[in-house]
Amino acid sequence: MAWALWGCSPWLVLLCACAWGHPKPLDQREDVRNCSISPPYLPVTAVNTTAQLTALRQQMHTQNLSAYIIPDTDAHMSEYISKYDQRRAWMTGFTGSAGIAVVTMGKAALWTDSRYWTQAERQMDCNWELHKEVGTTPIVTWLLAEIPVGGHVGFDPFLFSIDSWESYDAALRESDRELVSITINLVDLVWGSERPAVPSEPIYALQEAFTGSTWQEKVSDIRSQMQKRHEAPTAVLLSALDETAWLFNLRGSDIPYNPFFYSYTLLTDSSIRLFANKSRFNSEALQYLNSGCTGSMCVQLEDYSQVRDSVQAYTSGDVRIWIGTSYTSYGLYEVIPEEKLVADAYSPVMITKAVKNSKEQTLLRASHVRDAVAVIRYLVWLEKNVPKGTVDEFSGAEQLEKFRGEEEFFSGSSFETISASGLNAALAHYSPTKELHRKLSSDEMYLLDSGGQYWDGTTDITRTVHWGTPSAFQKEVYTRVLIGNIDLSRLVFPAATSGRMVEAFARRALWDVGLNYGHGTGHGIGNFLCVHEWPVGFQSNNIAMAKGMFTSIEPGYYQDGEFGIRIEDVVLVVEAQTKYPGTYLTFEVVSLVPYDRNLIDVSLLSPEQLQYLNRYYQTIREKVGPELQRRQLSEELSWLQRHTEPLSARAAPAASWAPLMTVSTLAILGWSV
Amino acid sequence: MAWALWGCSPWLVLLCACAWGHPKPLDQREDVRNCSISPPYLPVTAVNTTAQLTALRQQMHTQNLSAYIIPDTDAHMSEYISKYDQRRAWMTGFTGSAGIAVVTMGKAALWTDSRYWTQAERQMDCNWELHKEVGTTPIVTWLLAEIPVGGHVGFDPFLFSIDSWESYDAALRESDRELVSITINLVDLVWGSERPAVPSEPIYALQEAFTGSTWQEKVSDIRSQMQKRHEAPTAVLLSALDETAWLFNLRGSDIPYNPFFYSYTLLTDSSIRLFANKSRFNSEALQYLNSGCTGSMCVQLEDYSQVRDSVQAYTSGDVRIWIGTSYTSYGLYEVIPEEKLVADAYSPVMITKAVKNSKEQTLLRASHVRDAVAVIRYLVWLEKNVPKGTVDEFSGAEQLEKFRGEEEFFSGSSFETISASGLNAALAHYSPTKELHRKLSSDEMYLLDSGGQYWDGTTDITRTVHWGTPSAFQKEVYTRVLIGNIDLSRLVFPAATSGRMVEAFARRALWDVGLNYGHGTGHGIGNFLCVHEWPVGFQSNNIAMAKGMFTSIEPGYYQDGEFGIRIEDVVLVVEAQTKYPGTYLTFEVVSLVPYDRNLIDVSLLSPEQLQYLNRYYQTIREKVGPELQRRQLSEELSWLQRHTEPLSARAAPAASWAPLMTVSTLAILGWSV
Repeated sequence: MAWALWGCSPWLVLLCACAWGHPKPLDQREDVRNCSISPPYLPVTAVNTTAQLTALRQQMHTQNLSAYIIPDTDAHMSEYISKYDQRRAWMTGFTGSAGIAVVTMGKAALWTDSRYWTQAERQMDCNWELHKEVGTTPIVTWLLAEIPVGGHVGFDPFLFSIDSWESYDAALRESDRELVSITINLVDLVWGSERPAVPSEPIYALQEAFTGSTWQEKVSDIRSQMQKRHEAPTAVLLSALDETAWLFNLRGSDIPYNPFFYSYTLLTDSSIRLFANKSRFNSEALQYLNSGCTGSMCVQLEDYSQVRDSVQAYTSGDVRIWIGTSYTSYGLYEVIPEEKLVADAYSPVMITKAVKNSKEQTLLRASHVRDAVAVIRYLVWLEKNVPKGTVDEFSGAEQLEKFRGEEEFFSGSSFETISASGLNAALAHYSPTKELHRKLSSDEMYLLDSGGQYWDGTTDITRTVHWGTPSAFQKEVYTRVLIGNIDLSRLVFPAATSGRMVEAFARRALWDVGLNYGHGTGHGIGNFLCVHEWPVGFQSNNIAMAKGMFTSIEPGYYQDGEFGIRIEDVVLVVEAQTKYPGTYLTFEVVSLVPYDRNLIDVSLLSPEQLQYLNRYYQTIREKVGPELQRRQLSEELSWLQRHTEPLSARAAPAASWAPLMTVSTLAILGWSV
Repeated sequence: MAWALWGCSPWLVLLCACAWGHPKPLDQREDVRNCSISPPYLPVTAVNTTAQLTALRQQMHTQNLSAYIIPDTDAHMSEYISKYDQRRAWMTGFTGSAGIAVVTMGKAALWTDSRYWTQAERQMDCNWELHKEVGTTPIVTWLLAEIPVGGHVGFDPFLFSIDSWESYDAALRESDRELVSITINLVDLVWGSERPAVPSEPIYALQEAFTGSTWQEKVSDIRSQMQKRHEAPTAVLLSALDETAWLFNLRGSDIPYNPFFYSYTLLTDSSIRLFANKSRFNSEALQYLNSGCTGSMCVQLEDYSQVRDSVQAYTSGDVRIWIGTSYTSYGLYEVIPEEKLVADAYSPVMITKAVKNSKEQTLLRASHVRDAVAVIRYLVWLEKNVPKGTVDEFSGAEQLEKFRGEEEFFSGSSFETISASGLNAALAHYSPTKELHRKLSSDEMYLLDSGGQYWDGTTDITRTVHWGTPSAFQKEVYTRVLIGNIDLSRLVFPAATSGRMVEAFARRALWDVGLNYGHGTGHGIGNFLCVHEWPVGFQSNNIAMAKGMFTSIEPGYYQDGEFGIRIEDVVLVVEAQTKYPGTYLTFEVVSLVPYDRNLIDVSLLSPEQLQYLNRYYQTIREKVGPELQRRQLSEELSWLQRHTEPLSARAAPAASWAPLMTVSTLAILGWSV
């Protein structure tokens, strides 16, 4: 999955999500609100928010606030959030994943990006202004116009990253308004009994077969990093949910798509303090954690809600707390005195987790073989059923989940499947619903971006296919996207190169003809953890590449209103064997599903690219073939053989590679050109 | 020239400048000091610094300082500094361009990088400790050990960048020492009559034929940028010497290699205040500047030394001053209240100057044609004279300067010529001297990195040649460096892409076989201004590429103790014509000297690279040929014809490209592979 906007740098042209083709103007449509007429027009999808706004304003009045900010995150800066944390959705009616609401005594406003403008107009009532902008600046500009000098702006410090807090605080302070941290969330106070219950499914330990190291080994490793660090931190504070899950080899199901549970960890030089709801651990798990004993290798369970007080109490000693600022909320940051803080962008757990050891590599590879079986079964099924006209984007995604569900160790999707046909594939973050979807057809391209959670690994793969006759432009662009994927995958580069430095290799073949894509080129991935596992990847805020990291590589191309192409593989960073000695790296592709032959214009591939592609196909045969055989999936096996036949270079009369090959031919014949 | 260390990112392996081959251990050598024996051994090159240290310590005592920091820069953060500003060299004896000295009451220490360790051991007496480290951290660590809690560390705020000040200040304050800004430079106080005179050569206006716009047009443009900026700055403060030189189309000769004069500019919405020594302008120049009148388009000349007081006085009004923090000294920064500051990394003049208008482009191109004539004359001269054994690195460089001197509008070298034979070419920043140089020989490679200042443009070009039989490894590496140069030069990329994103294209062919180079890939260049003109280039602190910018492209390879290769061209950023419409850019090479055929292994070039190279050679013929003809340089013209003959692909039996070409051949013949 490629569309997340994490830190996309400004030169990336963000694709306009112009929604469903060429719609009518909003004020003539029945599916969206119209607040400019009297009485206002509201579609059936709009939510009446008057009651909750009134109640919130009462709370604001009690707290002497002129405004209250309601962000879209949880206390752990999670990518996906539990229903329990969907405060902004409940307050506004708008359920999109990104959007910040601000309420004053007289107004209520929402800021969201272009992907969600239509959805917001469908779901919000006329209590809410919609602002088609993102970032702190427009919100602050609006606040300054709405609230008086000296006014107080309230926020829940657990829902603000340190960076967010800094940017709001600086801008408001400069203009004599005050940002006020209020640890009791005001939305929660008014949400009351309507609020979904706090997640309470059991927290469980992963079987040893699925872990790279014991939690004791991991704890010792992090402690030894604490000792080596020159600021001599006495503790590491973990806030991201995958940090605690990884450290203890524990999993839960509090968050959609991510096997995590609400938690924090304060790992000190002499204690291990895990903040989570104790009642959710069974006696086995408690024993696994050596819980209840007192040595430095016993886990002390403390209540989740106690974390702020406990951290604050800890800071009274002669201590230094090491945090990763990217995932620590302001609610914890503000209780640690500056001189007791050791702050990196990412905690040592985040950095350590990024490099998979050989057992973790083996596990992740194995999950990709099984995932390939599921995706291949689905592609075979599509090839048979799409021509019948019986498949749509939604039912297709369901069928895929069914196939994945038959794979060993499967534990749900790793993100919401992007199953997009024709023009829908050009929309950022498009996912079909039971109500709203498009039929798959042999006349248009189909893009599938999906992944699974397995006990041994997390997967993420994108394939784009066409069952009929693609246009010359579609073939050319698909092939150029494929060249980008190949050129980056086969690149040899020095150890510790940052992904940012090399991601243009995935774009060059598109750039050559004046095309590009408006999203990042890839992201890290976990072992039964986050599908978008920071800080590995090709963005400017990613860390340097190192042996043992996994990342996706996913160039694409999107023709607005027509089609979308993306080709995504997960790759492992491995040592390269170079002609001259040196520490060089390259990628090994671990996703094992062939590309669509129907869309490849072989004449655009250089001999080196072709050779690489055929070697990859050989690898797919060797790794997935036996698994299909073992499972007696003979139809899939013969499909695999057909789709991994070595491709051969053919001269296309008008293709740009042809004259170049002629040059080589003449050269070989000894002619001068 | 490629070796400057500006902002080299940590993944670049900085080459070890291990000096002259494999020297003896330092304590057995006669050319360096030995402070570990009694009495200490000092070579004749060492400078006795006892007197100046004593005098400086008296000044420190008067000021109640425990330590005093002596940086290596001037008040304008210039790359090259006048003798008048070489305070650190005078204090320490060490004349290298990089190195920071710190003096306490009991000790004196110098920090410099590996390029200069030997030179420092030759030039310093035993008053000085040599620290083989760079950056603020080791200096602060040393200071904390040497001076007591509460101790004062003095510095001249005009010699500190804002960044330097911030890092020293934060580190010292954290440890209860105080950094004290002292505007009277203590070294100057003790330097006295020995100090070189302040530069006083005339300041002159460039003829209109050599300027892209009048100064009035430039002033109006900058003022209109001030009006558009949302913080509404009322003034722009210019500190870098090339900013003022560019704005007024004025030049001087205060700084080596750069045609600049000591100056600042405070350009306000209603006045133009140029801080420089008035007596250096003749009546013509004063008239040119409309000096003496009072309107908003008249230049008020104020004394150079008044700048701090004038800026401070200006800030008492309702004003906002726009600065570029990269070139503003702390001495000016500290007098501007924070709320009156509009701070960017680079001033609007720096950003505007980076994009050359069409007249400036024409001028720069023309200077490169004449520069190519000089370099070609030199290469022809070398080809004849090196085999006679009469040329050394130093005399060669002199001969080149003679040839450049015969070119129209020549105004000196644009930097110290790197004329390096054999193993010397692997040394960072190597330049020969009259005393210390190596003979050129047909048995080894020769690297020439040099440039000229011309009234119409500044040039910078590197060619590496071999007049005998290069080894297979040398040919391979030279060709891979050339491929890097070609691949980056011919890259098509979206407008506003940062150089950092694409510079790996210059490295890929080396990376492929486990090789690399440890310096940046290129830098901007000016019109009779800096040869290293910031902020254009391929480093992380460079701005995005835009049409009209000039940059060098200069990959290399260095085999320690054996040879060095660099191929550098200056290129212009131009619009690319792409198959599909879009705003894409590419480079047009404006350096016009052929590469060494003797070092090119054609079999390593792809057909596209070969085609590009032959097109470039055709351009050289078209642009330089007529100039050689006009000048009746017939020997050079026939050399040019020979050296720009189209290269033809030849199959090399063992070359890696050969099997790939075979694939294409088979493909054309319709065979499957």
